Amino acid sequence: MTDLPKHVEIHEEGPREGFQIEPGPISTADKIRLIEALADTGLHHIQACSFVNPRIVPGWADAEAVIAGFKAKPGVHYTALWFNANGLNRALAFRDKLTITGSIALTASEAFTQKNLHRSHAENVEAMRKQTALHLENGVPVTRVGVMAAFGCNYQGDISPAQVVRTLEDGFAIAAETGARIEVISLADTMGWATPARIERVLSEVRSRWPDKQLSLHLHDTRGLAVANAHAGLRMGVTRYDSTVGGLGGCPFAGQKGAAGNICTEELVLLCEEMGISTGVDLDKLIEVGRMAEEIVGHVLPSELIHAGSLDAFRRLAA
Amino acid sequence: MTDLPKHVEIHEEGPREGFQIEPGPISTADKIRLIEALADTGLHHIQACSFVNPRIVPGWADAEAVIAGFKAKPGVHYTALWFNANGLNRALAFRDKLTITGSIALTASEAFTQKNLHRSHAENVEAMRKQTALHLENGVPVTRVGVMAAFGCNYQGDISPAQVVRTLEDGFAIAAETGARIEVISLADTMGWATPARIERVLSEVRSRWPDKQLSLHLHDTRGLAVANAHAGLRMGVTRYDSTVGGLGGCPFAGQKGAAGNICTEELVLLCEEMGISTGVDLDKLIEVGRMAEEIVGHVLPSELIHAGSLDAFRRLAA
Repeated sequence: MTDLPKHVEIHEEGPREGFQIEPGPISTADKIRLIEALADTGLHHIQACSFVNPRIVPGWADAEAVIAGFKAKPGVHYTALWFNANGLNRALAFRDKLTITGSIALTASEAFTQKNLHRSHAENVEAMRKQTALHLENGVPVTRVGVMAAFGCNYQGDISPAQVVRTLEDGFAIAAETGARIEVISLADTMGWATPARIERVLSEVRSRWPDKQLSLHLHDTRGLAVANAHAGLRMGVTRYDSTVGGLGGCPFAGQKGAAGNICTEELVLLCEEMGISTGVDLDKLIEVGRMAEEIVGHVLPSELIHAGSLDAFRRLAA
Repeated sequence: MTDLPKHVEIHEEGPREGFQIEPGPISTADKIRLIEALADTGLHHIQACSFVNPRIVPGWADAEAVIAGFKAKPGVHYTALWFNANGLNRALAFRDKLTITGSIALTASEAFTQKNLHRSHAENVEAMRKQTALHLENGVPVTRVGVMAAFGCNYQGDISPAQVVRTLEDGFAIAAETGARIEVISLADTMGWATPARIERVLSEVRSRWPDKQLSLHLHDTRGLAVANAHAGLRMGVTRYDSTVGGLGGCPFAGQKGAAGNICTEELVLLCEEMGISTGVDLDKLIEVGRMAEEIVGHVLPSELIHAGSLDAFRRLAA
């Protein structure tokens, strides 16, 4: 079953994923510089910060300063991440600048829910029900159901497609109870268990069950298969992808401290554009931003493409 | 058109590719250690050295000492690389230990032939005709036609499938004239221009023209697409792949000094095994060898998987 889309929506998460995990302090000015440069590449969705507890994530202690500081480009959706009422309130203070929508975020692995959130899946469902209601009370639409560890889990092993469907059903039940109108189903390969074959199996089941929802993939390159998995997603008609410029970010999970983070935005753009799938992104500009990100964090980033240069750059040389 | 093989043949080139490009001196003992460890993983084809001019490639000045020094494992084919009569003679001195076969190696890009070999394609065809005859005179079978830059070229830009077919026809003409019996067609993505779509297009044409030959892919991860390209190859029924443990090697070509080298053997093995395609390789052992390779060269290698660990290792933990 091949169902290549004509266009995909790329949600850039480099600033949020990257700066929360980098050990060195990154200046507010550098964060702003990166966000503004990303918007100039043609990306239309940029997750700009995380409104989290600064004692837990010191890298985002300056979230307000970053959001207040960057110059917003018309037509670009700037988003943020939060996990509780306090985070939501901090985000709402920037209602004029940020695109604020909520998610129902569940995990297909009970073991991961316990390790990551210190609660059971049932407790997490209850927490998400309350959080969804809170969003709606504040006039914030909740449009997405997300499932973490949808392709496997370091703590639980393989995850069946049926388990993913059950987890999504729990999410849709929350939406039905609270009145949230879900548009997007997001599946996250949180710990890098996806393979192209697994992507096909899981997406087949999910698409059959919810044919009218947009599908989104959040892929990690933990074991080097992220681009192959994105290609499998494209073939299955997935039109929305999260990614990070340069492969910013990393993997904080068990036994994988040195492992790679998210799929690189520029490699995803290369893959799409060379297949005739438009992204709206100027790849050569994006590669320059990847190099800027590398300079800002002060170490080599996982992206191969920012070190090699685009095909178009060589095509121009050869012409 | 999907035609997944049940088994693939992996040709490990880490020692040869890796030690010719590493700037630091690698001891003969370490080279031998790596070759012996690779053979213990279940790999059946290991390219162990390059018989090249030590003034040009000082990293392989000790080729004879390495080949004499390692303990050969029964059932494993150890191979070497050479480019001229002198190299062939050095290889023939190890006829009892090495599997010695010749290749007709051409390039789909005239510009790359000039840059890399300082001769025209026509001159290269003539050189290959002489070299093939020399092999056959020495009782060395010539079984492979290889095409470099088969998917694109930094100096010439895109390469059409028709150009690849023409180049292969030149190779088969040499074989017909000299009496070489070709079994394998090898296509190399020398400078990282391949994409899954391009792999499909080129392989379709080549397979239609020569349906009875085994196809082999030599992929580079220059722009991060190597695993996706291997997946496209598997779907097209390609049963033979070159790769390097840990992603040893690199890219010596224009403007890409920091770029990645070959596809990582362990990521290729993970991809195949998770799709039910057997490789004969013990992935956990191979990951240990990738870590050994990293220790030997003294810097981080491109493989993500050696830093993350296999899925099976986590499956055992979770069980």
